[in-house]
Amino acid sequence: MHVRDGAGALAERLSRLIGPRASVARAVLEQHGRSESYHPALAPDIVVFPETTAEVAEIVRLCAAAGMPIVPYGAGTSLEGNAAAAAGGACIDFARMNKVLAVHGSDMDVVVQPGITRKQLNAQLRDTGLFFPIDPGADASIGGMTSTRASGTMAVRYGTMKDNVLALEVVLADGRVIRTAKRARKSAAGYDLTRLFVGAEGTLGVITEITLKLHPVPPAISAATCSFPGLHAAVDAAIALIQSAIPAARIELVDEVMMRGINAYSGLGYAEAPTLFLEFHGTEAAVAEQAQIAEAITTEHGGHGFAWAKAAEDRSRLWHARDNTLYAGLGLRPGARAVITDVCVPISRLAECLTETRRDADSHGFVAPIVGHVGDGNFHMLILIDPDDASELAGAKALQGRMVARAVAMDGTCTGEHGVGLGKIDYLTDELGEAVAVMRSVKAALDPSGLLNPGKIFAGADP
Amino acid sequence: MHVRDGAGALAERLSRLIGPRASVARAVLEQHGRSESYHPALAPDIVVFPETTAEVAEIVRLCAAAGMPIVPYGAGTSLEGNAAAAAGGACIDFARMNKVLAVHGSDMDVVVQPGITRKQLNAQLRDTGLFFPIDPGADASIGGMTSTRASGTMAVRYGTMKDNVLALEVVLADGRVIRTAKRARKSAAGYDLTRLFVGAEGTLGVITEITLKLHPVPPAISAATCSFPGLHAAVDAAIALIQSAIPAARIELVDEVMMRGINAYSGLGYAEAPTLFLEFHGTEAAVAEQAQIAEAITTEHGGHGFAWAKAAEDRSRLWHARDNTLYAGLGLRPGARAVITDVCVPISRLAECLTETRRDADSHGFVAPIVGHVGDGNFHMLILIDPDDASELAGAKALQGRMVARAVAMDGTCTGEHGVGLGKIDYLTDELGEAVAVMRSVKAALDPSGLLNPGKIFAGADP
Repeated sequence: MHVRDGAGALAERLSRLIGPRASVARAVLEQHGRSESYHPALAPDIVVFPETTAEVAEIVRLCAAAGMPIVPYGAGTSLEGNAAAAAGGACIDFARMNKVLAVHGSDMDVVVQPGITRKQLNAQLRDTGLFFPIDPGADASIGGMTSTRASGTMAVRYGTMKDNVLALEVVLADGRVIRTAKRARKSAAGYDLTRLFVGAEGTLGVITEITLKLHPVPPAISAATCSFPGLHAAVDAAIALIQSAIPAARIELVDEVMMRGINAYSGLGYAEAPTLFLEFHGTEAAVAEQAQIAEAITTEHGGHGFAWAKAAEDRSRLWHARDNTLYAGLGLRPGARAVITDVCVPISRLAECLTETRRDADSHGFVAPIVGHVGDGNFHMLILIDPDDASELAGAKALQGRMVARAVAMDGTCTGEHGVGLGKIDYLTDELGEAVAVMRSVKAALDPSGLLNPGKIFAGADP
Repeated sequence: MHVRDGAGALAERLSRLIGPRASVARAVLEQHGRSESYHPALAPDIVVFPETTAEVAEIVRLCAAAGMPIVPYGAGTSLEGNAAAAAGGACIDFARMNKVLAVHGSDMDVVVQPGITRKQLNAQLRDTGLFFPIDPGADASIGGMTSTRASGTMAVRYGTMKDNVLALEVVLADGRVIRTAKRARKSAAGYDLTRLFVGAEGTLGVITEITLKLHPVPPAISAATCSFPGLHAAVDAAIALIQSAIPAARIELVDEVMMRGINAYSGLGYAEAPTLFLEFHGTEAAVAEQAQIAEAITTEHGGHGFAWAKAAEDRSRLWHARDNTLYAGLGLRPGARAVITDVCVPISRLAECLTETRRDADSHGFVAPIVGHVGDGNFHMLILIDPDDASELAGAKALQGRMVARAVAMDGTCTGEHGVGLGKIDYLTDELGEAVAVMRSVKAALDPSGLLNPGKIFAGADP
């Protein structure tokens, strides 16, 4: 752990500000350095638990005066070390800023604090007829999802965080507080600061309030699984589904390796072949029609073993199988740890990218199940490694590097939804070249001392 | 017109670069200073017509070296003086960069040059089964629409330019060329530079290539009109439609004053009452169901005189009436010029904002028809004035100022889709306060000499 000069004095000032809600207890520091990723634990020097924007602004001012890095922290579920304290400093844990501040039913929006998780939010929306659809799998905090530009299974229908954040309140590097937008559904009023902070991983400011779009709960939902003779056929069916203009809410692909894991983990008997998990939202009649069209399209592309689920408990069982792929995947190699990575390519290249990646992993002897938000061209690989074998980690990183290079060569991106964090810094430059210099200019303009989540997105940003 | 030192020498260098495609002919300069707005004509010192990104980069480098402002220009249809040469300089007219560079059918995207107009683009897409839905009324260029974050009638279903631009090629203030993103459908790779340049009105860089999302042409379309006893009832019906989860493609409101203009202009016999224009896209069965639900909802809210149009020619007649509101509005006061302005508010406040604005205009003796993209809470007022009467212009600006203040007080924005340009500079600060300082920091970082479209978005940005 990196302990910096003045940390003691700062800790005292922070304690004076928020009393027992500042902690230097070793267990607390260590817990905030860990995440669900393969990246090494990097603990902060102090953890603070503010309750108001004013407290956050004062924390940021104190840290700025002391030259102390500031790392915002949500639910700790990010996958690229996005909230690791790479240069030590003060971790701002938003656990106590987890309230719904306002629900605007007619406007279909909600104002929340960053610490609330997506499941907590949807639980509180239960009686409104509205819901927040973005579902990255983990029960991530809304602040973290905003900062990593999260998306997940329903992005193909409802978009990503970029599309669902209406406005932000942000504490800047010098403690000023701004609102990026009003609550209008759209605006052409100047630069899109909202989208600038969405996905910035806390490197440009600390988000303290988020206004989100909500969507009407569909009157009817229907889900299905369908297996395919190969990855190509499954992807072709997905492309045809999207082009058919029927508004699928989820088009998920699980490869044959992961299907084996799901069967074992959940005691199920799915065919161990590439499988599409589908969902449709709409009126009773619309969902029935969509289901019929989808069955025809998938059948035409060699799909078989169609299984529809309309009742809530049947759908829940089906998605439970899909949602637990992290644990199901880990079960394929007991004791293993997963290097989880993602890329996103134009869907016309997806089958090729998937097949080559599958072959690459297999030929290097890795157990590496794949799941994909195939409607967006986005897929994840869980590379299972022995945590005590450095050569396996090195091999997994090399495999990831080839997967990213393949995706970028196909006009794709090095990360579809996990963010850059610590793990994709070099790949960002491979992908975007000189544009990264523009990002650095923006970073220098908004955080001239480099204290906001240093070491993320860019190399050498540690002050 | 502002003629700056060195303009002659620069003109010579530009002529050497692109020959007869650089012009200082008075008629050409004057034409590029005018727009469809009420703002005074502000002509550039020279107009250049590049054909390649390399030429644009070289033009920008030459202008930067000469300290000459740079103003990108598309179809000249913007409404806030966004492309006026407020400080003179070189106007880059993209008329000769109007090609479709690539259509990716399976990926449902297209790569275009900025000079192509939306109608030209859709004409070229005719055989693909895909279309580009953003429709701001005018046949604007895609570059201009990107730079003003345009939206229009179909935003309620398909989003705005912000949601439909996948990637940009941009020439920076120093002539460097970047790509903001690859062609993946989504990405979490660093700052969202795409969205930073969308809506920046050419003040951060010159856009030379745009990758757009396309959408499948719906197999069936159905449109309808329905009139209401008052604005409140029409807006309440629109809110209920949106909350019903049926995916309306357009929900347009035309007020009683504009309906009078439409009847006179197109020789029609609509009821001269607040009227909703609706459209639904989907399969035959889905559209039929949506139409039925919509009729039930609007009837419940006092709607009557329902008229459905399914055949293409009937729909075309219906939307022709709606689309010609500028000319229909002008017809209400022969010889008048229109001060066209827009705001956007949370839809729960829309009826109140509309009613108060209607009353304000009427009580000040203005003929000022209103049309709105009511599904988004966005509406336009055309304030008809005598172009030779300065007091009428002053009165119209004051009326606009009260409309904006009302919208901002209701948590809305000073411009839903026209941009800031020359006309909304002060209002931007009224709306967003300290956030405008952050925009200025970004501007200073990317255009330190202030040569990119100076005088727009911010006051005092003229070098």
